[in-house]
Amino acid sequence: MATVLRQSAKLTFSGLCSSFSVQCRNGRACAMPYVHHRYNSTTPKIKVDLDSTSGIAVMKFQSPPVNSLSLDFLTEFAISMEKLEMDKSCRGVILTSAQPKVFSAGLDIMEMYGKSPEHASVFWKAVQEMWLKLYGSNMVTIAAINGSSPAGGCLMSLSCDYRIMADNPRYSIGLNETLLGIVAPFWFKDTMLNVVGHRETEKALQLGLLYSSPDALKVGLVDQLVPEEKILSAATETMTKWLAIPEHARQITKSMMRKPTLDKLTSNRENDIKYFANFITKDSIQKSLGMYLAMLKKRKA
Amino acid sequence: MATVLRQSAKLTFSGLCSSFSVQCRNGRACAMPYVHHRYNSTTPKIKVDLDSTSGIAVMKFQSPPVNSLSLDFLTEFAISMEKLEMDKSCRGVILTSAQPKVFSAGLDIMEMYGKSPEHASVFWKAVQEMWLKLYGSNMVTIAAINGSSPAGGCLMSLSCDYRIMADNPRYSIGLNETLLGIVAPFWFKDTMLNVVGHRETEKALQLGLLYSSPDALKVGLVDQLVPEEKILSAATETMTKWLAIPEHARQITKSMMRKPTLDKLTSNRENDIKYFANFITKDSIQKSLGMYLAMLKKRKA
Amino acid sequence: MATVLRQSAKLTFSGLCSSFSVQCRNGRACAMPYVHHRYNSTTPKIKVDLDSTSGIAVMKFQSPPVNSLSLDFLTEFAISMEKLEMDKSCRGVILTSAQPKVFSAGLDIMEMYGKSPEHASVFWKAVQEMWLKLYGSNMVTIAAINGSSPAGGCLMSLSCDYRIMADNPRYSIGLNETLLGIVAPFWFKDTMLNVVGHRETEKALQLGLLYSSPDALKVGLVDQLVPEEKILSAATETMTKWLAIPEHARQITKSMMRKPTLDKLTSNRENDIKYFANFITKDSIQKSLGMYLAMLKKRKA
Repeated sequence: MATVLRQSAKLTFSGLCSSFSVQCRNGRACAMPYVHHRYNSTTPKIKVDLDSTSGIAVMKFQSPPVNSLSLDFLTEFAISMEKLEMDKSCRGVILTSAQPKVFSAGLDIMEMYGKSPEHASVFWKAVQEMWLKLYGSNMVTIAAINGSSPAGGCLMSLSCDYRIMADNPRYSIGLNETLLGIVAPFWFKDTMLNVVGHRETEKALQLGLLYSSPDALKVGLVDQLVPEEKILSAATETMTKWLAIPEHARQITKSMMRKPTLDKLTSNRENDIKYFANFITKDSIQKSLGMYLAMLKKRKA
Repeated sequence: MATVLRQSAKLTFSGLCSSFSVQCRNGRACAMPYVHHRYNSTTPKIKVDLDSTSGIAVMKFQSPPVNSLSLDFLTEFAISMEKLEMDKSCRGVILTSAQPKVFSAGLDIMEMYGKSPEHASVFWKAVQEMWLKLYGSNMVTIAAINGSSPAGGCLMSLSCDYRIMADNPRYSIGLNETLLGIVAPFWFKDTMLNVVGHRETEKALQLGLLYSSPDALKVGLVDQLVPEEKILSAATETMTKWLAIPEHARQITKSMMRKPTLDKLTSNRENDIKYFANFITKDSIQKSLGMYLAMLKKRKA
Repeated sequence: MATVLRQSAKLTFSGLCSSFSVQCRNGRACAMPYVHHRYNSTTPKIKVDLDSTSGIAVMKFQSPPVNSLSLDFLTEFAISMEKLEMDKSCRGVILTSAQPKVFSAGLDIMEMYGKSPEHASVFWKAVQEMWLKLYGSNMVTIAAINGSSPAGGCLMSLSCDYRIMADNPRYSIGLNETLLGIVAPFWFKDTMLNVVGHRETEKALQLGLLYSSPDALKVGLVDQLVPEEKILSAATETMTKWLAIPEHARQITKSMMRKPTLDKLTSNRENDIKYFANFITKDSIQKSLGMYLAMLKKRKA
């Protein structure tokens, strides 16, 4: 199945299209309607560089065109995180993108469109696994958000300990699932709530809000803006400060803050998978996704 | 009893009197000590205009002098909400006031003063019903707060999805129950907490704080200030944006955000009613209310 | 044992040393590495002045050099609070320091270093008692923070109803336990979370952040900055406003806001004590504390 998927269109759950532009805070239509038909399955989708001296690993997403979170990408991500977590020489991870203008455009729609409930289940389990590994990591995790980061890309950012975004108002970030007729699951919601609080989350999720980088900073969705060319050095600098903290105490503290949120999913994974598989294979939802795909293709043409 | 009530003084739970002016953030004494003795019971207390084209209903409170939340008002409100909720052509509701300078001055004290525990129970059930219908509405709800909005008026505003307030610093808003010796119930508290967070809520409820409109904007109690004459057009404009969101996903998202808060009351309604009926009929509380009424009458005279 | 302790070095859990200066937001190294060897055990550690006319008590910490929270201090504090709580003429308490430059430097390390699990248990019970009495007080409590207030000193401040800090950027405040390899317990965390929310708490506790007074104001860790010489008059002025609120309603409201947080500890005190006694007597933690003490002594020399 993975092979089939790799050869199919790479379409992404970004919800950035003009028909929904009313939700764009800055009033601009968004520009990521990529439809990509060729893909080299042998290239790793994530490049991991670990500097054993500093203890800092950089995970660079290199899954063209927009780092969509396909089953393959998610599997590779989970394996990479697990390896780093076990590696005593690694203490911090920086997530960033090798693709221009986009950090990650979110869940790969092609994993959800026209697929069986079984496939949807396998895919959703991988999405859960990505979040559990990242939100529950013992390492220091920093998102160096050097491009737009809608939906699943935003979730990955929110799951890190610190978020630095490129100071470019054309880049946006947010959990915009609602715009596609999809509902952000409760643990997406909880992750956002833990960052920006109840009110901002309620408004953002109801509207599927995408925040421009300055707006994201204003509401606390990201911690810092830096010029795009300085984003990795800024992330490394911040990482160095975090790694100077007594490690064991920091890890226990992080776990104390995040465990209740993680437990809500771990104690409920099967139901969450069933709910997703059932929801996403509904005719009405498939129809929404189909219309969205058609619109993306039309924009491309 | 309702007839008797209609003919009795219309006194409102607003707590805006000068003896408590210390809690007014802007230092000004408040100006709503209305004591009104005549009332035409045949006029509806709420005027509902539904535009089936846009799907937007406007509910205009027209219960002179200060839209106090009497049993009749609350019953009418619940019925109107239920009708709109069932009406497929209605997708959003704007709440606003036809009375000058006041959105709603809150719970009608005359429903609580000198009344039997049975009456207090019936009244409180209606207050609960108003909140359950409004906070749990599937429709988009916007408060166009064109005047002061203390206590129960503030609760109604907080229960909407979005709050636009007239940009007039003489209008104030807040859960000021404490100033009357009354305690805001846990679900008033939860509703505020979901909007402005724990710290602001703790301070505001302990002090019975009334915020001037600029202060309300600052702490996030309202989302937007506009000149008073533009409040309905601004509300309509915002509503149009909200109604452009895929409806089913928005509704599920809203429910996901609010259900835990709603459940706390629905699973506990009877106890909450008993607690209120017992509390409000206590001698000490009746004495407080009596003193407050006397003070209002004196101010009027 | 208390006698032995009194004669031992007074060292404090402040974590303000230069080796951790990376966590100081303002980049300055901190300056409270006191090692004090003489102490007069007959002087009360807290001076309580109650003005029966106003109903306001001032509790002045006078335990040189840095008001460290020793077992004796905490016991005295709990007894004083209990007396005031029972005293009908007292309705509000202002906490402040008689020592220059420091409000309280937090838990006394000498109560935790080289001590038996039994001593650690007794000590921790006293720390719990301090918090339960202060966070759960029926009185209005205001912290007049006239100096730095790390760790346990910050907890005391956060447990009050209102925080006024001296407007001196050299004074800092924060739960910086992580810097010493210690983990702030869940109820320290909950207390902070109730003031500044989840995100700021997660970041602050992971990093052991100490905020300069302007930064503390910015994130809401304190409510107000005033020139140091005006701190008591400002606290008294604020207290007067709070005492004008109908008392019974204010107390019930405060309890409604804080009871869930208090209950989490009261229903779990024994486990929390066991956990602490076990944690603090671990070799690795004792080694951390030993290194910290050695560093403080060296700085002093």
